[in-house]
Amino acid sequence: MSQSTINDRKSEHLTLAGLPTMQMSVTNGLDSVQFEPCALPELNFSEIDTRCHLFGKELQQPLIIASMSGGTRASRQLNQTLAAAAEQAGVALGLGSMRIAIEQPEQCSTFQVRSIAPSIPILANIGGAQLVQPEGLSHALKCIDIAEADGIFVHLNPLQEALQSQGDTQWRGVLDAIATLVTLAPVPVIVKEVGHGLGPSTARKLVNVGVQYLDIAGAGGTSWAAIETERSRTDNKAQTGEVFHNFGINLRDSLRSIQQEETLSESLTLIASGGIRSGLDIAKSIRLGASFASAASPILAAANHGTESLTEFLEQWRQQLRISCFVTGCASLRDLRYAPLITPQHL
Amino acid sequence: MSQSTINDRKSEHLTLAGLPTMQMSVTNGLDSVQFEPCALPELNFSEIDTRCHLFGKELQQPLIIASMSGGTRASRQLNQTLAAAAEQAGVALGLGSMRIAIEQPEQCSTFQVRSIAPSIPILANIGGAQLVQPEGLSHALKCIDIAEADGIFVHLNPLQEALQSQGDTQWRGVLDAIATLVTLAPVPVIVKEVGHGLGPSTARKLVNVGVQYLDIAGAGGTSWAAIETERSRTDNKAQTGEVFHNFGINLRDSLRSIQQEETLSESLTLIASGGIRSGLDIAKSIRLGASFASAASPILAAANHGTESLTEFLEQWRQQLRISCFVTGCASLRDLRYAPLITPQHL
Amino acid sequence: MSQSTINDRKSEHLTLAGLPTMQMSVTNGLDSVQFEPCALPELNFSEIDTRCHLFGKELQQPLIIASMSGGTRASRQLNQTLAAAAEQAGVALGLGSMRIAIEQPEQCSTFQVRSIAPSIPILANIGGAQLVQPEGLSHALKCIDIAEADGIFVHLNPLQEALQSQGDTQWRGVLDAIATLVTLAPVPVIVKEVGHGLGPSTARKLVNVGVQYLDIAGAGGTSWAAIETERSRTDNKAQTGEVFHNFGINLRDSLRSIQQEETLSESLTLIASGGIRSGLDIAKSIRLGASFASAASPILAAANHGTESLTEFLEQWRQQLRISCFVTGCASLRDLRYAPLITPQHL
Amino acid sequence: MSQSTINDRKSEHLTLAGLPTMQMSVTNGLDSVQFEPCALPELNFSEIDTRCHLFGKELQQPLIIASMSGGTRASRQLNQTLAAAAEQAGVALGLGSMRIAIEQPEQCSTFQVRSIAPSIPILANIGGAQLVQPEGLSHALKCIDIAEADGIFVHLNPLQEALQSQGDTQWRGVLDAIATLVTLAPVPVIVKEVGHGLGPSTARKLVNVGVQYLDIAGAGGTSWAAIETERSRTDNKAQTGEVFHNFGINLRDSLRSIQQEETLSESLTLIASGGIRSGLDIAKSIRLGASFASAASPILAAANHGTESLTEFLEQWRQQLRISCFVTGCASLRDLRYAPLITPQHL
Ligand SMILES: Cc1cc2nc3c(=O)[nH]c(=O)nc-3n(C[C@H](O)[C@H](O)[C@H](O)COP(=O)(O)O)c2cc1C
Ligand SMILES: Cc1cc2nc3c(=O)[nH]c(=O)nc-3n(C[C@H](O)[C@H](O)[C@H](O)COP(=O)(O)O)c2cc1C
Ligand SMILES: Cc1cc2nc3c(=O)[nH]c(=O)nc-3n(C[C@H](O)[C@H](O)[C@H](O)COP(=O)(O)O)c2cc1C
Ligand SMILES: Cc1cc2nc3c(=O)[nH]c(=O)nc-3n(C[C@H](O)[C@H](O)[C@H](O)COP(=O)(O)O)c2cc1C
Repeated sequence: MSQSTINDRKSEHLTLAGLPTMQMSVTNGLDSVQFEPCALPELNFSEIDTRCHLFGKELQQPLIIASMSGGTRASRQLNQTLAAAAEQAGVALGLGSMRIAIEQPEQCSTFQVRSIAPSIPILANIGGAQLVQPEGLSHALKCIDIAEADGIFVHLNPLQEALQSQGDTQWRGVLDAIATLVTLAPVPVIVKEVGHGLGPSTARKLVNVGVQYLDIAGAGGTSWAAIETERSRTDNKAQTGEVFHNFGINLRDSLRSIQQEETLSESLTLIASGGIRSGLDIAKSIRLGASFASAASPILAAANHGTESLTEFLEQWRQQLRISCFVTGCASLRDLRYAPLITPQHL
Repeated sequence: MSQSTINDRKSEHLTLAGLPTMQMSVTNGLDSVQFEPCALPELNFSEIDTRCHLFGKELQQPLIIASMSGGTRASRQLNQTLAAAAEQAGVALGLGSMRIAIEQPEQCSTFQVRSIAPSIPILANIGGAQLVQPEGLSHALKCIDIAEADGIFVHLNPLQEALQSQGDTQWRGVLDAIATLVTLAPVPVIVKEVGHGLGPSTARKLVNVGVQYLDIAGAGGTSWAAIETERSRTDNKAQTGEVFHNFGINLRDSLRSIQQEETLSESLTLIASGGIRSGLDIAKSIRLGASFASAASPILAAANHGTESLTEFLEQWRQQLRISCFVTGCASLRDLRYAPLITPQHL
Repeated sequence: MSQSTINDRKSEHLTLAGLPTMQMSVTNGLDSVQFEPCALPELNFSEIDTRCHLFGKELQQPLIIASMSGGTRASRQLNQTLAAAAEQAGVALGLGSMRIAIEQPEQCSTFQVRSIAPSIPILANIGGAQLVQPEGLSHALKCIDIAEADGIFVHLNPLQEALQSQGDTQWRGVLDAIATLVTLAPVPVIVKEVGHGLGPSTARKLVNVGVQYLDIAGAGGTSWAAIETERSRTDNKAQTGEVFHNFGINLRDSLRSIQQEETLSESLTLIASGGIRSGLDIAKSIRLGASFASAASPILAAANHGTESLTEFLEQWRQQLRISCFVTGCASLRDLRYAPLITPQHL
Repeated sequence: MSQSTINDRKSEHLTLAGLPTMQMSVTNGLDSVQFEPCALPELNFSEIDTRCHLFGKELQQPLIIASMSGGTRASRQLNQTLAAAAEQAGVALGLGSMRIAIEQPEQCSTFQVRSIAPSIPILANIGGAQLVQPEGLSHALKCIDIAEADGIFVHLNPLQEALQSQGDTQWRGVLDAIATLVTLAPVPVIVKEVGHGLGPSTARKLVNVGVQYLDIAGAGGTSWAAIETERSRTDNKAQTGEVFHNFGINLRDSLRSIQQEETLSESLTLIASGGIRSGLDIAKSIRLGASFASAASPILAAANHGTESLTEFLEQWRQQLRISCFVTGCASLRDLRYAPLITPQHL
């Protein structure tokens, strides 16, 4: 793909993702998950501990900034903002697709934010479809090196690729390549979608080849079908994509289906994403079995106002998560997993 | 019925069918059918094969242009447009009711589009109520001849007839006539509704007399009650029809009920129609057990802009169907039948 | 109650009942009852027979004009219009509450429409609460005489009475009085509500004292709570009634609950009312076990345009009922009772 | 907390509570609870008896004015209005949080309305979080003394406190403190929430330490998350609270869950609140197992127009409760508990 093409695409993505119409019109399902309030927390708010560890590093809350950005000037700035705020707030940072850093070595520095964020987990990112291209695996390893990453996201986005004019639609061998990457990579591999969700069928395949980390990225948040449809409005792929606007499995259905299968739930550490919009959503995700939550579009919106604004935003989510713990009587994330839910008593 | 009456009726049908108010206000039920996405298709997009065979002829996708048109000048033009686009796109062509060709032999040529569409299945069309009129059966056979057809649709439309001022409401013997037609016809007989649906009770009767092809034409798309109500607004049958606007069984309920009865599902090849509005809908229909899908009103809309526009439109649906295959990891229509669905996990 | 009071009340009722805001904002539940269409009726439309008998007299369709009107000049006119149209259309006629004819003998003639409607069932009407007042029973018998009635409705309207400034709220003994009336009356006694519904608990009590005819008058149509609330807007009972706007059991729930109890369904002949708004609704009512349907507010609206308009209106409902029979393959009301319904196949 | 701070807070509360946006956008669930009407009450309206006893004193209806107000001039006036109307209407009076009377002894008189309301139950009020502060228990006892109270409400409001800038978020020991208060207090202790509900988990803990009275204050009425969010709009806690706008368990779910656990239902006397908006709601609450109902925001609205207006308002609810009894055939609150409900008969 030509340099300018990737650049343009990434810029368009960053701009379009901000529009409300690029969000799905269905929810991520967490609205039907309601905590039973605990009016007797029997703890002091200050004792609530939302810290946890990801790949050996401590986070102040179980939150990962979702992969965004790419290789444009704008995204260099974005990555620095995200890194600085992540370091200050103590959350993990997922970098955007690093393909451009492989194809255009001068872009590498865009992803080199380790000096800005020395203490938090930084996660590299590569597409599943890139893995099966020539040198795909070594490119993946190189991405880890470039970013001095603690882990690497492999994103699976068949719908997005199918809707792009020049999308990568060669997907034979992707599973094998992931299996090999899991063996070779010096850091953990996390497989993610980009907004249409990983369901139990996909999870089964991944568990079978040794994947231990899944980021759901389910339906209910940013709609990549919408974004790619919008981008191709001028050509006649436009209407093609519209019918997939809400395509996918939502976060709730995915988490619950996976939890119901012991083989899956015992093998996997789950990251909840796709429409996460508050610290209360993080709490609900933990309740449904996730270990971490992640979000892209609202974080992008906050980042557009600078590092301080984003740091404040992340702190607000942490506060909401802490309040969620308080009003359910949970002192820790561990407690949250067993917080009772309301069963509606319709007549 | 007088020549001008049929002509007028058909023109009115073609015009009215374009209005949004002539669509039912209920859905065809496919919105509650959601594919679990497969994020690891393990196939290349280019390998996806949506071809299939209908009556010995190959289609590029399992789609039949639904019966429309009649004997007016406009419909001669329409039939030619439909035929040309069907040939180019490789889909089957259902002709509109050919009654007029019997009653007004000079109209025969309206339906003679074989030279324009030599390689695709062309399907003749006659009303169930016409079959029981004098010479009904030989008329049916004549329709097949005129159109050089590969099959013949018998449409059952009791509600539509009951709402027309001069409708055919003599339905005794229709089932027997169909049974005889199945035995005599040199080509397969497909029984269809026109938008209010064939349910399991009707399917049972038809299977018992040897019918092997059913086109559901269920509630959720074009509302014939609405169209006939609109046409008779001036006389006082108008309000009579309004209460039947959404009458009928929808596509989903019909397909699923039929699938649940082994005798039916084993004996029948099903065509899904009534509100089919995208290639994703085609995919869902295949998933629910149909072998083909069919649509009228959106195809009419595209045909109004000419052959090229319709061909592009049909190609777009094929692309959507292919994408549906891709994102569910299906290489073929056969695979699609077993694609996992999402079970909502409400709390 | 003073003469002018009853007169005024009745006039207000007739005027208010026409306002859309006086209808409940919930449905009568028949919208969730959907016939499976029969695309092979195997009958000729002209053969469909919707005739039936009520108290020895033939009706052209199973419809009773619901009790309305009272003792004003307007209602004398109304009764004559209703009677003439009922006679022409061959439906039964329920007279409005005849209390005024007892209290003001000069009003008797208002209810004497037998000469206008010689061949149809005419049904007298008295309030349950009137029965327990001095001479209540003999008044009831007198009402039958005055109207030369084939039956008598006893309306039970505790909510309406409780919301009227001078309502009859002495209900001790009403059940006993009904029991006695059943024994003494020369014609059958039908117990009805006025729009809030007779549920299974009330049905049980009535069956136990020998009542054989029930008119549900369920929630989903005219709201008497709304009408009485509106009438008392000036005094402070207004807001009191608002919360009862939709109070009651709807037609569907009532019919189905009663059908599920063999003792009830075997002892009772049911009249379906409360929100009946078409011949399709009549068909659904028959399907749910009713023998007749009845309606007030839409009939009042048609009657306001005169006898011819109302006759046409009644004919339209008959036509809709016949079409409902046709498209479900039913030749008679008896068949309709076993017409298959659609079971939604949600996923 | 400084004098002016509490004063300001209370004034803001009283003002904000009147805004429709401060109500939850979910219902309290009572809308799905529908009485089966009884068309044969077999009682005279005048016989209906809604009287009951609370702490040895007779009420004209099972209603408690919910705790509101505080220590401002406005609330002194409010308390006097509430007391006068409560006395006239024969309902119980819950005083607002009396913390200010402890912290600012000159404010004591605000809560001293016994002379205005000599015959009804007056209930003191203190926060659960205040109980664990130094002298908390003796303060509680003092509140009872000041108000010459018949009982004392302990309100549990962890969400509200967590959302206030200077909220009390030390909740260790609250349960023990309640246990002690139950033992020491000369009058009964009622534990309540303030609008997010007491669910079965909390109820279990309270029953275990001997609490016998629970006021649900469930989700569906006034939203304290909304009010505290509004109050802090200027600082950056604002958005933090928005996600909790509808947080909590609603009245119906809470009552039904508690009823389903015999240990709970046998040990507890329940007060239904949170979105109670009519006498019909009171009736439904009694049906679901509550012994009393309570409301704040609609009573505040009526009280703003003076004692007479509020008395009339309370009388209207009593009338609605009586009508609810009449139309369900219940002569007393005891009967109401067994009134049949409608089970919707969807198809
Ligand atoms: C502007 C933007 C750019 C993105 N770029 C990438 C990417 O390069 N790689 C990737 O794996 N996901 C990418 N995503 C997907 C997100 O990581 C995330 O999975 C998805 O947006 C769902 O989260 P949300 O609903 O919180 O936005 C991007 C999302 C946005 C909004
Ligand atoms: C303009 C128009 C004309 C039609 N004419 C016929 C016809 O002649 N014969 C027939 O069997 N069906 C006819 N139909 C019904 C269609 O074949 C189809 O069953 C129905 O419209 C449902 O599909 P849809 O929802 O995609 O429109 C007609 C439909 C339309 C819109
Ligand atoms: C204007 C009007 C007057 C009525 N008067 C009486 C009456 O006198 N006696 C009676 O039993 N019901 C009376 N009803 C109630 C009707 O008989 C019927 O039960 C009720 O309106 C429900 O039917 P609907 O929804 O079709 O209006 C009256 C209804 C209306 C609209
Ligand atoms: C203006 C206002 C002030 C309140 N103050 C108190 C209080 O001081 N103590 C308390 O326990 N509850 C307080 N509440 C909560 C109410 O007692 C009640 O539990 C809650 O508002 C739910 O009832 P509603 O939906 O009828 O308003 C207050 C409510 C309002 C509206």
